[in-house]
Amino acid sequence: MHDSAATVDPLIAAVSAGVEVHDLGRTLRIGMPQSPNHPPYWHALPRRHGDMVRSDGGSAANDMISMGTHVGTHIDALAHVSQDGRLADGSDAREASLGGRFDALGAHTIDPIVRTGVLLDVPTALGSPEGLDGGYEITPANLELTAKVQGTTIEEGDVVLIRSGWGRHFDDYATFVGKETGVPGVGEDGATWLADRRPHAVGADTIAFECLKPGAGHGLLPAHRVLLVERGIYIIEAMVLDDLAAAGVHRFTFVLSPLKLYGATGSPVRPLAVVSRG
Amino acid sequence: MHDSAATVDPLIAAVSAGVEVHDLGRTLRIGMPQSPNHPPYWHALPRRHGDMVRSDGGSAANDMISMGTHVGTHIDALAHVSQDGRLADGSDAREASLGGRFDALGAHTIDPIVRTGVLLDVPTALGSPEGLDGGYEITPANLELTAKVQGTTIEEGDVVLIRSGWGRHFDDYATFVGKETGVPGVGEDGATWLADRRPHAVGADTIAFECLKPGAGHGLLPAHRVLLVERGIYIIEAMVLDDLAAAGVHRFTFVLSPLKLYGATGSPVRPLAVVSRG
Amino acid sequence: MHDSAATVDPLIAAVSAGVEVHDLGRTLRIGMPQSPNHPPYWHALPRRHGDMVRSDGGSAANDMISMGTHVGTHIDALAHVSQDGRLADGSDAREASLGGRFDALGAHTIDPIVRTGVLLDVPTALGSPEGLDGGYEITPANLELTAKVQGTTIEEGDVVLIRSGWGRHFDDYATFVGKETGVPGVGEDGATWLADRRPHAVGADTIAFECLKPGAGHGLLPAHRVLLVERGIYIIEAMVLDDLAAAGVHRFTFVLSPLKLYGATGSPVRPLAVVSRG
Amino acid sequence: MHDSAATVDPLIAAVSAGVEVHDLGRTLRIGMPQSPNHPPYWHALPRRHGDMVRSDGGSAANDMISMGTHVGTHIDALAHVSQDGRLADGSDAREASLGGRFDALGAHTIDPIVRTGVLLDVPTALGSPEGLDGGYEITPANLELTAKVQGTTIEEGDVVLIRSGWGRHFDDYATFVGKETGVPGVGEDGATWLADRRPHAVGADTIAFECLKPGAGHGLLPAHRVLLVERGIYIIEAMVLDDLAAAGVHRFTFVLSPLKLYGATGSPVRPLAVVSRG
Repeated sequence: MHDSAATVDPLIAAVSAGVEVHDLGRTLRIGMPQSPNHPPYWHALPRRHGDMVRSDGGSAANDMISMGTHVGTHIDALAHVSQDGRLADGSDAREASLGGRFDALGAHTIDPIVRTGVLLDVPTALGSPEGLDGGYEITPANLELTAKVQGTTIEEGDVVLIRSGWGRHFDDYATFVGKETGVPGVGEDGATWLADRRPHAVGADTIAFECLKPGAGHGLLPAHRVLLVERGIYIIEAMVLDDLAAAGVHRFTFVLSPLKLYGATGSPVRPLAVVSRG
Repeated sequence: MHDSAATVDPLIAAVSAGVEVHDLGRTLRIGMPQSPNHPPYWHALPRRHGDMVRSDGGSAANDMISMGTHVGTHIDALAHVSQDGRLADGSDAREASLGGRFDALGAHTIDPIVRTGVLLDVPTALGSPEGLDGGYEITPANLELTAKVQGTTIEEGDVVLIRSGWGRHFDDYATFVGKETGVPGVGEDGATWLADRRPHAVGADTIAFECLKPGAGHGLLPAHRVLLVERGIYIIEAMVLDDLAAAGVHRFTFVLSPLKLYGATGSPVRPLAVVSRG
Repeated sequence: MHDSAATVDPLIAAVSAGVEVHDLGRTLRIGMPQSPNHPPYWHALPRRHGDMVRSDGGSAANDMISMGTHVGTHIDALAHVSQDGRLADGSDAREASLGGRFDALGAHTIDPIVRTGVLLDVPTALGSPEGLDGGYEITPANLELTAKVQGTTIEEGDVVLIRSGWGRHFDDYATFVGKETGVPGVGEDGATWLADRRPHAVGADTIAFECLKPGAGHGLLPAHRVLLVERGIYIIEAMVLDDLAAAGVHRFTFVLSPLKLYGATGSPVRPLAVVSRG
Repeated sequence: MHDSAATVDPLIAAVSAGVEVHDLGRTLRIGMPQSPNHPPYWHALPRRHGDMVRSDGGSAANDMISMGTHVGTHIDALAHVSQDGRLADGSDAREASLGGRFDALGAHTIDPIVRTGVLLDVPTALGSPEGLDGGYEITPANLELTAKVQGTTIEEGDVVLIRSGWGRHFDDYATFVGKETGVPGVGEDGATWLADRRPHAVGADTIAFECLKPGAGHGLLPAHRVLLVERGIYIIEAMVLDDLAAAGVHRFTFVLSPLKLYGATGSPVRPLAVVSRG
């Protein structure tokens, strides 16, 4: 029994004492930047108020949405990426999608995440708090330094969020996608450094999590291979991290509850960083 | 600073001590039951592994989704329902949707919810734990009795979930929608009783939250009027509540983070009930 | 030169002399009957007049559509059906869809059709002009008889339309789909008889062209195998044929111009039967 | 009776004698250029061959499509544009869309077109057959000259197609849309000249039919006002006209059969120019 007043659930006690919720998710809007590889987010109101009024004076409006799953802030399911024809579980990547859905590693297999999260605010640690340049590769040394400067430790099972500052370009479609400018992020080395800390998931404020060189597009994604395929670590992209960084929050309770989209390769999400009020 | 080892955030401490996460969201699948008023959930994989392999042996699969927002487990934004031409904030309901989106009361205005949640397991309290009959109207007396039997108190700002047991029919499309059978739930009286407790949101394991009489369809929805329009209380529908009830969890930390769908009338969600491990 | 007044194009002359156009296509509406195997037709207006008025007082409304291609009146591309792993051109059916599109036999490869069409009004010939019963299999003898009664000859390359009368049930979703009632149409024998006349395409006023037995669903579709895979003959479904039959038009110029949907398995269409005014 | 061998339908005779069909429609592909005001065309195969094989060795593949209606080659319904709050029939433009569909002037009200068509090959007449420059406004004098050079007369009820040559840029997204370069076409004067000839419909090989000045976008569309709203003349856009021009075909039988999309503001189409073989 969990509802006896006699034994207060410590979690309820902590929440009741006051928490601050930092919203790490983007607003989904028509026209927001996203990878051209995915169906864009679109929305319409098939029914508006006044279209059909019931006998009691009530009416309901509703929506129609079309989209990929790697739109806005989103999490990659393990099924998203294959290497040499294999998925993270060693299965044949082509056979795994028979039926038009990934039964074993689809988005519906991502458990809700309620874990300790840490923010590595790299540009602040490197002395340019506004953000890194397009194409800048965040190295293991950068990550080490950031953790040290912040006094942040990473435990196995944590969720590690890497701020690059590139999120400031979200309202500028071409720059956020970064085809010409590139996008800052970890490369294979940084991804390996992260994976070696054995996090449950990693995230960033960029469209593809990893470093994209100017003009290179999404042709090679080594961090996806290391994290998703080789280590089974989820990747969260296009997060809102500037507010969290500005608040100086580097350790928090991270909550992410992806839509249980059966067989899909990912899900749009609205992750939260929750901290007790001081 | 929140990351000093010296001052442990009580929330992090509570989570680190061990929590159990109850998943209250439905899996979204092609063919799942939903109201015929909304575009049905559909999914395809535009790209499967093997369709396009990059030079390094990697490949990515992706998704295409079409849906309404009141699909699967979902939350209603305040913009969803109007009464006598007015929305919850008193604005003109038709004007509020100009531009094809609800700027003031759309789904993007629903803040993430991290609050105390309570479950009112009505059928168990009434002696038929499997569930109520189609069309059964849950009365204020039923709700009072359930709270009393459970020893559950409802505080202002809580999220109150009403279990009817109808979720057991989710795999039977026609029954879950309930056009012929009806669906159990609160009527105007029960909704008013709930609203008087001043909850932040309410939820149920049914398609429309409220009592639907056999053959009546969704023609009259008085609980929506009371809750959404008159009191500004969010409604969450098609929740998975049987597992939570079976575990005897009646008070918990409730987490819900709707997609920030700009201007939409609701969002599919995957709510969580989180409890500290005993 | 085709524009000299001196040499009048005979086709222009025929059209200018007066033609009657019979519309053989269904109206596409939300909620119309279609096979549950395909994404249903949905429509919304993302922008209505008044949402955004330009400086000169003009405004534009627009649409958002989600659908399968086998919706409303539609034509099957040869890529739609495979038998024993092979398509109509003998290619491996699975490999043919690599890339998420059928390059060789997709809907974009269906040339516009401007040919002689013939209508076989089977129920009228059989003495029940309103229509055949659900599950009735139209035999070669029925087809022979109909052609004879009508005085209709079928030439190689013609488009042959089979009226069953089942189109009268289009406004009754369950009956038109025919899961319980079955649907009248040709079976393997009738399809073979048709194929032996070497038509360019065949069509019917039913959801699947061929005979569906009550309760049988779409589990076996031998006419599709014979026509699409073995003979390379297009199939047109859910046509409106009652008006044409009522007008006694059995031979006409048939025009069908499918959308050139790259790589798709079919296209919604609005076929026409055009006849000179007497 | 139309099927007696004794009285051959002149249209059938003309078609049987041999016709050449010029396809004036674009292939619909993911990524093709279209106005950003409309949901882009997207396609996926929810089911591929091999995903589900029936007991008899057969399998069916199918499609999922999301799009606006003003995609690829398309026709504007009269409901598409309003001026000063009124539609072509004088009705209140906002009220006309109540219910989320245009009952009176939607795409379902566009009758199939089987009429004489004429091509005005403006750039060839002006001595630059490849095509006009971005932003060039085709004047009444240009249209007069073209008709004269070609020896083409326009009769009331004809369909008049204006070639600008801009279709050569269809594979170059940015240029075809023309935000920076502009797009050639008629302005208000040219539209009025056309309207005064009382055509049934007009068309062009550009994204918006009318002249767009470099950098001006779609902010002002006077030709749409003149043609759709003031005169009730349909507009067809993004046509393929270069092949027809290269073949020197200036008069033909024009066939266009829009999808009967109930209440929509337009329809993708695949128009045909049909000529008797010499």
